[in-house]
Amino acid sequence: MFDKLFPKEFNFFESFDKEVGCAVRAGALFKELVGKGTIDDESREKMRDIEHDGDKIAYSIIDNLNKTFITPFDREDIHTLAKKLDDINDMINTIVSRMKVYRIKIVNKNLIEFANVIEDAINAIACAVHDLRNFKNANNILKNCMEINKLEGKADTMRDEALGELVDNEKDPIEFIKWKEIYQDAETVLDICKVVAHVIESILVKQA
Amino acid sequence: MFDKLFPKEFNFFESFDKEVGCAVRAGALFKELVGKGTIDDESREKMRDIEHDGDKIAYSIIDNLNKTFITPFDREDIHTLAKKLDDINDMINTIVSRMKVYRIKIVNKNLIEFANVIEDAINAIACAVHDLRNFKNANNILKNCMEINKLEGKADTMRDEALGELVDNEKDPIEFIKWKEIYQDAETVLDICKVVAHVIESILVKQA
Amino acid sequence: MFDKLFPKEFNFFESFDKEVGCAVRAGALFKELVGKGTIDDESREKMRDIEHDGDKIAYSIIDNLNKTFITPFDREDIHTLAKKLDDINDMINTIVSRMKVYRIKIVNKNLIEFANVIEDAINAIACAVHDLRNFKNANNILKNCMEINKLEGKADTMRDEALGELVDNEKDPIEFIKWKEIYQDAETVLDICKVVAHVIESILVKQA
Repeated sequence: MFDKLFPKEFNFFESFDKEVGCAVRAGALFKELVGKGTIDDESREKMRDIEHDGDKIAYSIIDNLNKTFITPFDREDIHTLAKKLDDINDMINTIVSRMKVYRIKIVNKNLIEFANVIEDAINAIACAVHDLRNFKNANNILKNCMEINKLEGKADTMRDEALGELVDNEKDPIEFIKWKEIYQDAETVLDICKVVAHVIESILVKQA
Repeated sequence: MFDKLFPKEFNFFESFDKEVGCAVRAGALFKELVGKGTIDDESREKMRDIEHDGDKIAYSIIDNLNKTFITPFDREDIHTLAKKLDDINDMINTIVSRMKVYRIKIVNKNLIEFANVIEDAINAIACAVHDLRNFKNANNILKNCMEINKLEGKADTMRDEALGELVDNEKDPIEFIKWKEIYQDAETVLDICKVVAHVIESILVKQA
Repeated sequence: MFDKLFPKEFNFFESFDKEVGCAVRAGALFKELVGKGTIDDESREKMRDIEHDGDKIAYSIIDNLNKTFITPFDREDIHTLAKKLDDINDMINTIVSRMKVYRIKIVNKNLIEFANVIEDAINAIACAVHDLRNFKNANNILKNCMEINKLEGKADTMRDEALGELVDNEKDPIEFIKWKEIYQDAETVLDICKVVAHVIESILVKQA
């Protein structure tokens, strides 16, 4: 429906799909790296490239927003959605970069579990963003937004349990600090996903 | 005034009062738990229930927003207010959960003082939200928003002093980390209250 | 252009310039303090005064927003810009206060470098905010916003390198914690600058 109002020159929906595609790639690479348990320079570089790709798409969306008269939904929401999707890549990139900075080289089952939840949330975002093309998908979109909220709650619990393990077992304070931050950052990815869900819900509210 | 424009089917003002009511309960329970100095499983569960109640109300507000044509104020502000009030409960719940995760069992006068400031800020929010029913209350609302801002400044100072005490007296780094986080999270509750005040001020600005 | 629509009684542009002026002063004082390497009570007080001045200007902007019928750009954006500019001073003030709380008294080349980047970003904000007077400056404004984004990326790298140094060399966990927080807070100033750039971009988007 909104598709028809949409100018030929720039397709916001396609661009959002591409931007989410970067998040999907970031989530998959993160899972792979965590599974291997080592952050080599090559995969560090690959993650940075994904993040840069996402940046470029976000900027092209915002740039085209300036030049487009009729937009499929609120200009501000397009702006916010582009920025917040970008924040997901930024945060995953931050964790990988932090793991390298902290010289972390150990496979850790908690982090693997986080990587799975992150991947699930990003996939739900990908569906919700794709469905924005048609307001008839509203129920599906809301379902995916609720799924994201649920995953964020799950990640909260996971972080608490992981921190509890640290308190009980980790006697080296600097190791404690490193892992505490990594677990909390992993949970923050889910917090950002929840904000994305919030923006998407806002878009629906305004279209209602 | 806005009350009259408001459809019978769903009363946003009443729902906001209920949502704030959850924050009031969370603040009171937090004060009680901190006063006792122990987080037993029962009160941990009670806090989680309050947080879930708040969640449900927030969702019902957002859900009804989708179905309501005329709203008492901006749709987006209703959405944001519902989410941010929810964040207060989330954060208090986080602190209680963190205290449990960190196996903290000691009465601490600094935390008691924080609990008092949190309670005062939530009460000011409760008044401001209740007063949104009538734009004639604008001065009262602004006064409560300023009060919240003042309490946030006070909490800032309290956190600095509490951190200074840690630097001077706490030689166990892991204890240092735990308490540093708890003090900072307690102050974050006030930061969220300040954001709520900000949203309420925004609503007034638009009604002006 | 928008200047002409603007009521004589209150000049938002002048007030924003004054508010940014506080951030410029905060950035300069921070650089000076970090250069000296000691936070004496007098300069601590000076920083707090700047922060209070900024607060007052922010509040006068928001207060006048309530009383002004025609505004140079979106009411909500004026509100957000006033608050976010204030956040810059708040964060710099926080770092100085934290350095005092942590009894830090050592000149540190990393922090000096951060102070330089913070100053550059604030100067770019000052230009962008000043240019908001005339929509013909749109390209210049966007250029400054991009510069701010670039500086934020640079600060990210600087923080990672500074944290890496800590991991390699700092064996005292409490010193590790203090400096980790200071480096991360210094980078947060840049994050806030990026949010300001985001708000400014939003204003442009709506004027387009």
